[in-house]
Amino acid sequence: MRTIDWVDGNVKIVDQTLLPQQTRFISISTATNLAEAIRRLAVRGAMALGVAGALGVALAAVRAHERNLPLGPAVDEAAALLKRARPTAVNLAWGVDRALAPRDQGPEAMLAAALAVRDADIRAGRTIGANGAAFLQGSRRVLTHCNAGALAGVECGTALSIIGALDRAEQLEVVYVCETRPLLQGSRLTAWELREASIRYKIIVDGAAAGLIVGGGVDAVIVGADRISANGDIVNKVGTLSHALAARRAGIPFVVAAPEASIDPACPSGLHVPIEERDPAEVLYMLGHFVAAPGSSGFNPAFDITPADLVSTIITEERIVVPDQATTGSPDVSVG
Amino acid sequence: MRTIDWVDGNVKIVDQTLLPQQTRFISISTATNLAEAIRRLAVRGAMALGVAGALGVALAAVRAHERNLPLGPAVDEAAALLKRARPTAVNLAWGVDRALAPRDQGPEAMLAAALAVRDADIRAGRTIGANGAAFLQGSRRVLTHCNAGALAGVECGTALSIIGALDRAEQLEVVYVCETRPLLQGSRLTAWELREASIRYKIIVDGAAAGLIVGGGVDAVIVGADRISANGDIVNKVGTLSHALAARRAGIPFVVAAPEASIDPACPSGLHVPIEERDPAEVLYMLGHFVAAPGSSGFNPAFDITPADLVSTIITEERIVVPDQATTGSPDVSVG
Repeated sequence: MRTIDWVDGNVKIVDQTLLPQQTRFISISTATNLAEAIRRLAVRGAMALGVAGALGVALAAVRAHERNLPLGPAVDEAAALLKRARPTAVNLAWGVDRALAPRDQGPEAMLAAALAVRDADIRAGRTIGANGAAFLQGSRRVLTHCNAGALAGVECGTALSIIGALDRAEQLEVVYVCETRPLLQGSRLTAWELREASIRYKIIVDGAAAGLIVGGGVDAVIVGADRISANGDIVNKVGTLSHALAARRAGIPFVVAAPEASIDPACPSGLHVPIEERDPAEVLYMLGHFVAAPGSSGFNPAFDITPADLVSTIITEERIVVPDQATTGSPDVSVG
Repeated sequence: MRTIDWVDGNVKIVDQTLLPQQTRFISISTATNLAEAIRRLAVRGAMALGVAGALGVALAAVRAHERNLPLGPAVDEAAALLKRARPTAVNLAWGVDRALAPRDQGPEAMLAAALAVRDADIRAGRTIGANGAAFLQGSRRVLTHCNAGALAGVECGTALSIIGALDRAEQLEVVYVCETRPLLQGSRLTAWELREASIRYKIIVDGAAAGLIVGGGVDAVIVGADRISANGDIVNKVGTLSHALAARRAGIPFVVAAPEASIDPACPSGLHVPIEERDPAEVLYMLGHFVAAPGSSGFNPAFDITPADLVSTIITEERIVVPDQATTGSPDVSVG
């Protein structure tokens, strides 16, 4: 199953807001509709957003060509719209730019560039899994946050690609899945994927992770990243930082799995990343009901920043990067 | 308002499972029914549980006396039942034992002992507030977890008693209230209390606390404790430890507010405290609906252990205790 693909001249996605109860595919024919799908998180996750950005530009180019409209304004408008849909997601903007690059060569070249982004992401997920499993050999009990799996990529994802590879090596005993409030990507999406893959897991509330980790119940924490700054700071789903702090306290690896495209060399540190604030209603309502005390207001940052010194390693499709030399004594190791 | 009291020969409690939507008082006439109310969290929180334990024994004694039944078996059975209702809560057992102590002097003496527990708790809450506000002078933005307020005590609670005192000193700008999954004591109960007291607050998901704290948005973390071991380890609602780790990283105070009764000198460290595991359904269901991926299972510890070295101070009605000499250079300071 591919969570996002180019099928018959349209973008086909699985609507992740309906999972795990329903598996419904949507065919999207315009960049405007794709931007809306990105905004409402029907398609999400670093790698999938890169592909979505690229395929969104391709959609705009192909539609403009079909209608004999000028290519330039159509793709420029689509690019701006797509980038604005999730301003924190560097992969989204990256994917948009990749498909825009051959604009002088016409819509077919732009579509080819977008499909190359998709194919590279599929390959990257597989390689990240193999690299990570080699690094984490012997980890039996791992903990993950949010969803950095197939549903966040095209085919096998990042963090869950490593977990899948550990499972195939028959080393895995249990995966602790943090539910990931407020939107429950952990208990809805990651749990759905692990169950599909017959990997044993337990869902915990996000607040239970630190006790479990510091208490010695976890061998490694494996998460994805929405953006990695040049100094190795990790911007990921809110709640990630507390797992990194607990992992450091427990002396276990805190591993970040991400494609090279998530590394933003133009961003010096996590402090330079604008943190998306989402609607507080996500915190205050459950299943459409206001669950907090009447009259309450909320604060709902979508991401947090894990400083580089708390990160044991960043695993990409090209490298195993160790940002914190003090911890491991081994700087920036390339594994090709 | 008193959340638990002795009224007309019965125990009167506010049913906290109905808050914040409904404020309903229940009159309870037997220790069995009170134990059931404790188990379903209709009455909860360290201090309130101490009073509940004491008043529960008084109920058993008074009922036995009214029916001319032998006092001994009635109060022994009630004591065992009440203690089993929440095995982790040391205050509950403590309150039970306080009311049991004068058993040789008959039911009136046992009731008087129970009422003394209630009155001492009311005084303790007020003193903790004053002690804590003096210690935290100048803290404008504080963060709290779960509910350690009036609803966890009799009249003003522990952590929220400090927050109330800071507010009366006109120093408080905002209280960040962690929603406290899975049962939302933060967004339901603490938010309800702060709103009643006209104190400005924002509700956040538990996972957002670390980013807020490490990012410099919080001046102090203030929490309650269900039990404190002899070495100063803190057993409190699951999720507490991650706030302590974040506070240490940020270099801000992590303050524990608790009555002396929560300190268990017979318990050498947090590792000796049995951690209550509650029904995983609390994690997997919301408002009666299964929200996780179909077929998922969960793990639901109710508490976690914050090691003493992460605790800046423990504030009781008698002392300001500094467990970690390395951090502050100031051992065990009595302020009685």
